[in-house]
Amino acid sequence: MSDWRSIPSENKHREFLEKFSAILIDFAFESVSRDNPVSRWRSASYLQEILNFDLLEEPKPQKDLLLLANKILKYSVKTGHPYFMNQLFSGLDPYGLAGQWLTDALNASVYTYEVAPVLTLMEKTLTRKLLSMFYKNDNGCEFGDGLFCPGGSFANGTAINLARFFFRCEKKDSLVKPTLFASEDAHYSVSKWANLCNVDVVLVKTDDLGRMSVDNLKICIRQEQKKGSSLFMVMATAGTTVLGAFDPLIEIAEICQDLKIWLHVDAAWGGGLIFSKKHCGLLRGIERADSILFNPHKLLAVPQQCSLFLTKHNNILTEAHSKGATYLFQKDKFYSADLDPGDKYLQCGRRADVLKFWFMWQAKGSLGFERHIDHLMSLSAFFKDEIEKKKHFELVTQPCFINVCFWFIPLHLRDKDSISNYEEELSKVAPKLKGRMTKRGSLMINYQPLREKPNFFRFVVQNSGTDMQDISYVLEELENLGESL
Amino acid sequence: MSDWRSIPSENKHREFLEKFSAILIDFAFESVSRDNPVSRWRSASYLQEILNFDLLEEPKPQKDLLLLANKILKYSVKTGHPYFMNQLFSGLDPYGLAGQWLTDALNASVYTYEVAPVLTLMEKTLTRKLLSMFYKNDNGCEFGDGLFCPGGSFANGTAINLARFFFRCEKKDSLVKPTLFASEDAHYSVSKWANLCNVDVVLVKTDDLGRMSVDNLKICIRQEQKKGSSLFMVMATAGTTVLGAFDPLIEIAEICQDLKIWLHVDAAWGGGLIFSKKHCGLLRGIERADSILFNPHKLLAVPQQCSLFLTKHNNILTEAHSKGATYLFQKDKFYSADLDPGDKYLQCGRRADVLKFWFMWQAKGSLGFERHIDHLMSLSAFFKDEIEKKKHFELVTQPCFINVCFWFIPLHLRDKDSISNYEEELSKVAPKLKGRMTKRGSLMINYQPLREKPNFFRFVVQNSGTDMQDISYVLEELENLGESL
Repeated sequence: MSDWRSIPSENKHREFLEKFSAILIDFAFESVSRDNPVSRWRSASYLQEILNFDLLEEPKPQKDLLLLANKILKYSVKTGHPYFMNQLFSGLDPYGLAGQWLTDALNASVYTYEVAPVLTLMEKTLTRKLLSMFYKNDNGCEFGDGLFCPGGSFANGTAINLARFFFRCEKKDSLVKPTLFASEDAHYSVSKWANLCNVDVVLVKTDDLGRMSVDNLKICIRQEQKKGSSLFMVMATAGTTVLGAFDPLIEIAEICQDLKIWLHVDAAWGGGLIFSKKHCGLLRGIERADSILFNPHKLLAVPQQCSLFLTKHNNILTEAHSKGATYLFQKDKFYSADLDPGDKYLQCGRRADVLKFWFMWQAKGSLGFERHIDHLMSLSAFFKDEIEKKKHFELVTQPCFINVCFWFIPLHLRDKDSISNYEEELSKVAPKLKGRMTKRGSLMINYQPLREKPNFFRFVVQNSGTDMQDISYVLEELENLGESL
Repeated sequence: MSDWRSIPSENKHREFLEKFSAILIDFAFESVSRDNPVSRWRSASYLQEILNFDLLEEPKPQKDLLLLANKILKYSVKTGHPYFMNQLFSGLDPYGLAGQWLTDALNASVYTYEVAPVLTLMEKTLTRKLLSMFYKNDNGCEFGDGLFCPGGSFANGTAINLARFFFRCEKKDSLVKPTLFASEDAHYSVSKWANLCNVDVVLVKTDDLGRMSVDNLKICIRQEQKKGSSLFMVMATAGTTVLGAFDPLIEIAEICQDLKIWLHVDAAWGGGLIFSKKHCGLLRGIERADSILFNPHKLLAVPQQCSLFLTKHNNILTEAHSKGATYLFQKDKFYSADLDPGDKYLQCGRRADVLKFWFMWQAKGSLGFERHIDHLMSLSAFFKDEIEKKKHFELVTQPCFINVCFWFIPLHLRDKDSISNYEEELSKVAPKLKGRMTKRGSLMINYQPLREKPNFFRFVVQNSGTDMQDISYVLEELENLGESL
């Protein structure tokens, strides 16, 4: 008989859930072990055959479900493994994982106090804390506002919407050809969401280190002013995706202030530095931003997804977004409607992404996050030093943050950079090595081209379980993989 | 010493995770027990005092973290409880919960095959299956496309963006005053996201049952045509939020076809009916939609969040959204780039919402979902019959779906509907009862006004653990709560 009811029943499900969670706990330790591969690469057709994803009429028994779970775990990439360095997230934080599991058990949607009393208060406290950290506002008064977003792209889109709303309110004017500025190294979500919001984007040139050129920004502004565009925002980045560059926030803030336009700082990647006394200087000027995007799921290794949009404007989220839906935000509730956060959101139903972050923070303290970051920065500095020492490797740019971009130079290309097809040949190296490492399961590290620069690797690390020996391993493994090229 | 590393360590964390998951498994059964309250209402100040949400410098020890978790569970609303009928989601499906826990252990982001091989294939299979069900396309060929979205609001916004893109491509024209039509009972996200996308919304009147009036739609269209607006889409609803009404899809589809404009059907709530041979007739005409929103986390009781955007157009997601970011979607990968779904999304990093749904489907089979829905529809029909029988209650409209909207008529208002302040007095009843039931923890059911109709209750059920006795309990409890009014 089909187990169709959407509620757990003691006699049918307890043993199943116990076995299931035991499998997951074993996985948590095995998947991060250096004795096990970071991935077990298989072709799509192989996976389709052994997993059989088809959705059928008939139910499967519990023993088959446990087998399926085991296969899913086996053939998925181990993003918590110390050798997973492929994305701007990694690690498998034990308290973050516990926080996720707790979130799932609650199965809540965070829009009203009545259905999510604990979670709405938790969101409020955590948002206020981050506002006080980023905006250096410690006097305890209500300052600014924030949203939890399903990822950084969404938060960047929200910023565009608010900047436009702000412009309309300030200038009491509709916008002709509304135009925003972002650097050519800004995240691609800026262009995607500008399309959605129906505004134009002007891409400002970057300097050698990948930072927005203030001179070029000024030129772009003048050009757009001549065209009669409505300039309404600058999107700066604190920690670009590939090079890890920090745009010069103070100079950009001056320009925005002069023009009375919105400054948004995409600190999705770099924002975590706010926890480190030693390294938070990279964020200097961020306190002047009208809005900030910060993804704890990146640098802080909070589980996927945890993304915050913060703004210094007290009421703008409510003013720009609220619709007062009467089925959720009744005016005659038996408690204060101020406790309901939902109406200022662009989402309606919303997963409680706050809980895992809050729980990790309780477990580690701010000091734990600081130590985590300082460790990652040391690893990255060590990696960079090693790259500079070794003749198989060449830095793409001098790093200032976690990202270390480098070429692996195989033997047949060493000291051959004067040959005509050097760059073409060099660009073939990274994809080949990437294929080899993934199939071997020994390492996952990302590569990409950037403008005129041929394919290069990007070292990043967010997993503070990684140590100096792992860094040496990564370098050795790259040499091994590239030996026969 | 702070436990700061973002990786589980066997000797520090195994016992903690085992204790933690044991607490959660106990919670799964206790939280849905009729012997326990659906909520333990406390004021915000009380919760702040006993939970102390503050985020401190110093870490907390594991025993304190377990106590915190217990308090969070205790004071959160039990959305899996059979008496939680407050939202368009409920239940705590054991296989859905297992699927969530598995998703968390993987901590994946679904954009490329290389980092999420199993999950990308799973998404593809499940999306194809739903496309074949909604579009009645069973010949196995590739038809249409789909996205997993962080909620229905986002999916409605995506529809607006695609409809506008389609219009521009078809008419080779920019839009002057782009205008969409939705009924006055359409979800409020339509207006929120129309603002974001910078398009106008015209709200079409509904009939007595809450369905979009086709006559009024025609009138609105003529008016907008006279104004010179660019008409580009109709947003129909299959299962409105409050009344549970189904817009007349076939007639609306005819109009859209004549005008060559996009038809989006928001079936966030009603879409699950596709699994029921007995009840899928309510969705008749949905196969003519250009796009469909369907939230398995509503009617099917999949855990929060699981929301699908489906479109019959094969390539439009890629054409409208792709930016070809070279750090993720390299053209020279060692495997076929067709396997990477990420570039067609408006999100970049993205939680694997597919897994819990897929896992539930394996556990229940399509037949299990069908039985689940047929049971809910029976409960709802029974509830409606009881309401009609009892003199304390009055139906707001005749229901056709799960939603049963009704007034509780207290003794002092019975047969008094001719008195001048009757509606004013009646509108005070639901908020009072809602306060009482929440504080007592005996029931959670939502109320709202709608246009000229004073506050009324909306019965909904998605938890197939609920049975006929529970329905009787709900009615009795409402009578008890309202006795002394």
